[in-house]
Amino acid sequence: MTTDVLHDLALALPGVSLATDSTTLAAYAKDQGPVQDLVDPLAVVWAETVADVQNIMRWASRTNTAVVPRGAGTGVSGGAHATRNCIVLSLEKMNRILEIRAGDELAVVEPGVINADLNEAVRPHGLMYAPDPASYRISTIGGNVATNAGGLRCAKYGVTRDSVLALDVVLADGTLIRTGHTTFKGVAGYDLTGLFTGSEGTLGVVVGITVRLRYLPREVCTVAAFFPDFRTAAAGVLAVGAARVQPAIMELLDGATMAALDGAHGSDLGTRGGALLLIQTDGFGAEAEADAVRTVLSGLGGTVSSAGSAEAERLVELRRHSRGDAVDHELRVGEDVAVPRSQLVHYVAELERMARDHGVRLKVVAHAGDGNLHPTFWVSTAEGAAGAARLDAALDESITVALGLGGTITGEHGVGQFKLRWLAQEQQAEVLELQRRVKAVFDPAGILNPGKAIPGA
Amino acid sequence: MTTDVLHDLALALPGVSLATDSTTLAAYAKDQGPVQDLVDPLAVVWAETVADVQNIMRWASRTNTAVVPRGAGTGVSGGAHATRNCIVLSLEKMNRILEIRAGDELAVVEPGVINADLNEAVRPHGLMYAPDPASYRISTIGGNVATNAGGLRCAKYGVTRDSVLALDVVLADGTLIRTGHTTFKGVAGYDLTGLFTGSEGTLGVVVGITVRLRYLPREVCTVAAFFPDFRTAAAGVLAVGAARVQPAIMELLDGATMAALDGAHGSDLGTRGGALLLIQTDGFGAEAEADAVRTVLSGLGGTVSSAGSAEAERLVELRRHSRGDAVDHELRVGEDVAVPRSQLVHYVAELERMARDHGVRLKVVAHAGDGNLHPTFWVSTAEGAAGAARLDAALDESITVALGLGGTITGEHGVGQFKLRWLAQEQQAEVLELQRRVKAVFDPAGILNPGKAIPGA
Ligand SMILES: Cc1cc2nc3c(=O)[nH]c(=O)nc-3n(C[C@H](O)[C@H](O)[C@H](O)COP(=O)(O)OP(=O)(O)OC[C@H]3O[C@@H](n4cnc5c(N)ncnc54)[C@H](O)[C@@H]3O)c2cc1C
Ligand SMILES: Cc1cc2nc3c(=O)[nH]c(=O)nc-3n(C[C@H](O)[C@H](O)[C@H](O)COP(=O)(O)OP(=O)(O)OC[C@H]3O[C@@H](n4cnc5c(N)ncnc54)[C@H](O)[C@@H]3O)c2cc1C
Repeated sequence: MTTDVLHDLALALPGVSLATDSTTLAAYAKDQGPVQDLVDPLAVVWAETVADVQNIMRWASRTNTAVVPRGAGTGVSGGAHATRNCIVLSLEKMNRILEIRAGDELAVVEPGVINADLNEAVRPHGLMYAPDPASYRISTIGGNVATNAGGLRCAKYGVTRDSVLALDVVLADGTLIRTGHTTFKGVAGYDLTGLFTGSEGTLGVVVGITVRLRYLPREVCTVAAFFPDFRTAAAGVLAVGAARVQPAIMELLDGATMAALDGAHGSDLGTRGGALLLIQTDGFGAEAEADAVRTVLSGLGGTVSSAGSAEAERLVELRRHSRGDAVDHELRVGEDVAVPRSQLVHYVAELERMARDHGVRLKVVAHAGDGNLHPTFWVSTAEGAAGAARLDAALDESITVALGLGGTITGEHGVGQFKLRWLAQEQQAEVLELQRRVKAVFDPAGILNPGKAIPGA
Repeated sequence: MTTDVLHDLALALPGVSLATDSTTLAAYAKDQGPVQDLVDPLAVVWAETVADVQNIMRWASRTNTAVVPRGAGTGVSGGAHATRNCIVLSLEKMNRILEIRAGDELAVVEPGVINADLNEAVRPHGLMYAPDPASYRISTIGGNVATNAGGLRCAKYGVTRDSVLALDVVLADGTLIRTGHTTFKGVAGYDLTGLFTGSEGTLGVVVGITVRLRYLPREVCTVAAFFPDFRTAAAGVLAVGAARVQPAIMELLDGATMAALDGAHGSDLGTRGGALLLIQTDGFGAEAEADAVRTVLSGLGGTVSSAGSAEAERLVELRRHSRGDAVDHELRVGEDVAVPRSQLVHYVAELERMARDHGVRLKVVAHAGDGNLHPTFWVSTAEGAAGAARLDAALDESITVALGLGGTITGEHGVGQFKLRWLAQEQQAEVLELQRRVKAVFDPAGILNPGKAIPGA
């Protein structure tokens, strides 16, 4: 069957790049999420135009072949993992910035544009594209839209959804639709733009994105504050809010994260405290806000960087790039829960207890401004299946406890394939069923990214 | 039949307030939008609990009776107009603020809470609920959610959607579901919260809303600038953006609006220029931003208020309450298009031409920060059908031209009943069909607010 399908694919799509060699298949079989069930796709196809995507989807509909859309493959929930008998549809070659309309503060891009490239292109106009996942140098805007990616500065500027005005989407049957509006506001009809955003490639293939830009802030100030422990640092987060400061960035690192950074970069963070709070303010009030932050954090016993500190800025850069320190002899899983802000301290204490109980290692960074945590659990691979089972038990408990505090299983990474097992703990059966039926409206045969984002889809 | 249905309703809902007297039916037959086809509902029922709403919807499903959910009835698109053989379900008595969680910067409210009342309640915590439609003193949060209401300060703080974290919704069959999350960020499953927001009561009845609050700004500064004409004032809007200022409020009033305010309040705005730009900055940078605004606007030839001007603040209040100057001898229709910001000047020039061409009067205010305009057209009622036809022709052309410039038929008021006739000009047939099918997922029998928001729903 496989050969037939592929033969048909090549015939149906003359001129479209297609690969079936084992190296390419293996490279496109997974994203950066945990892999439970590794399978190669039948083929990888690269669309270069909207018409290519339409032709591919028409072919897939006709042959009832599953299609996994893929941006840069930097996802960490397995949303772009290949599934049985699927083809991977890569959008990475659709990477043109089609329009920059500075007066309207918007841009139109193809899905494969790298986040950082858009920011480079709009900077000369004094503009920025606000959503900045730590993967901004390697992930695509299409992938950011499909996952509704968050970022460091989303406490102030919102998540990807808040910067998406309109989408061009190819549906499962090849139909091209346009959702949304090219104005900042618009309420005509249902919010399909929002529905596609974060739908992880299960409702349609995003082939064009109209984004809202914002003026670059006039000033940016950075404050770094070392605290004796996580509890005091987290109290700082609430105190900054109560001082009515709206930081652009508010990142919280625990002692284990600082130790890991020291190990990787030869720094001495670990000698300076047990937790690090990094805050960036921006705009016309940046300096006044930074002053207020310094006062508040010193008052809580923090060791606070002075105004204009170059080190504070360096630390934010270090934090931005603090993922990806995986090593071969460790089995690691990063989590992505969010909890109501007031629960940060309690939740991290719980995480530390779980790590002890299950005999696993733990480090935590948090986008503290919005209560979104990235705990990483790990064991030595030398521990084999027993270690993996303990890791899994710790993960499961970390989810259950977060939900018990009114949290969510995923603040920004998406459910993908990996977090499906927890979704029914968060959402009631009726809500899951409604989502299955919404999915069926857009993709009745279920060929778009099956087994991702919602159960039974 | 009618009597049977009502008898059944009274039996099914012992203890629920219900009215069928003609005065009440007439009062609940329409909102503040234009009326094309006035019909009284069969009855008005007031829910006081979530269980009441569930019982009412179960009864409506069983008897296949149309239900028009209603907040305060301040909508201006006819979304809450009664339709044939419907009951009106009023949520106005479900008006309790259930929770204020200052540390988490969120509140949980029933749908009938008046927008201003929530703001009063959270102010002592130093917090605010940001979405502020000009109707904030009279409209309900449930209605704001159902219309995805905008407001004066949404250029900076976003529209209602941006402050809604989670919803409790009763579906057509009486099922109670919960969408969203009580954390600032969350991407588990499809964005049903966004789908319900702005769905104008056609997908479900909103019975509980978890909103994000924000800290009250430390400082607020107001600048009023009179310009010789609309063109220069609109240039000011773009220049303020280019100076990288993010105003909280940026309202633009044309000469006819100033004349109307003078008529109503005895002011002398009309003698001071042909257009008025009102800008409010807030936060730690408020003064620095206001300084920048004053410099930029003076440079463009504006007559700019000095720092701390009490008059400027009074003018913003006047603007906030500038609707509702309808008079009996005039037939008026207010519009709500949005256009890309750079098209503001061109579009208003076009509106003026249309008013001349069709022989109708015109005044325009704009939420200039987001290109959302409220042109009002009017004729004397003495002109009878001929006048009404000219008014209609002007309206139709104002929509066609806005769409031609990349605009939308409704920036914030919703499609309701009145704007349905234009929706197919904005959205392609496939998109309308998808929305009909989404509607069918939530309300298969089509009993929730039929004939509103999307065609054929
Ligand atoms: C070092 C590192 C740091 C990270 N930091 C963050 C962070 O701060 N915040 C955050 O939110 N995430 C972060 N991530 C996760 C990841 O970068 C984001 O999820 C990103 O949005 C994925 O983009 P991508 O182009 O790599 O998409 P992929 O991984 O290729 O795909 C992601 C999902 O979107 C779907 N998809 C991709 N393109 C399309 C399209 N055009 N149409 C329809 N569906 C599509 C895929 O099927 C898949 O389900 C990080 C990852 C890494 C490796
Ligand atoms: C003076 C004035 C100024 C205004 N200024 C603005 C403005 O600046 N910005 C703006 O966006 N609008 C404005 N409006 C319009 C109006 O106030 C808004 O649309 C408001 O959100 C409607 O709220 P409401 O409680 O009156 O709802 P209603 O008018 O009762 O209902 C509006 C729609 O929502 C549905 N609905 C109401 N409650 C529920 C519920 N609980 N569940 C499901 N559906 C429901 C109704 O069926 C209807 O379709 C203004 C109106 C007036 C009269």
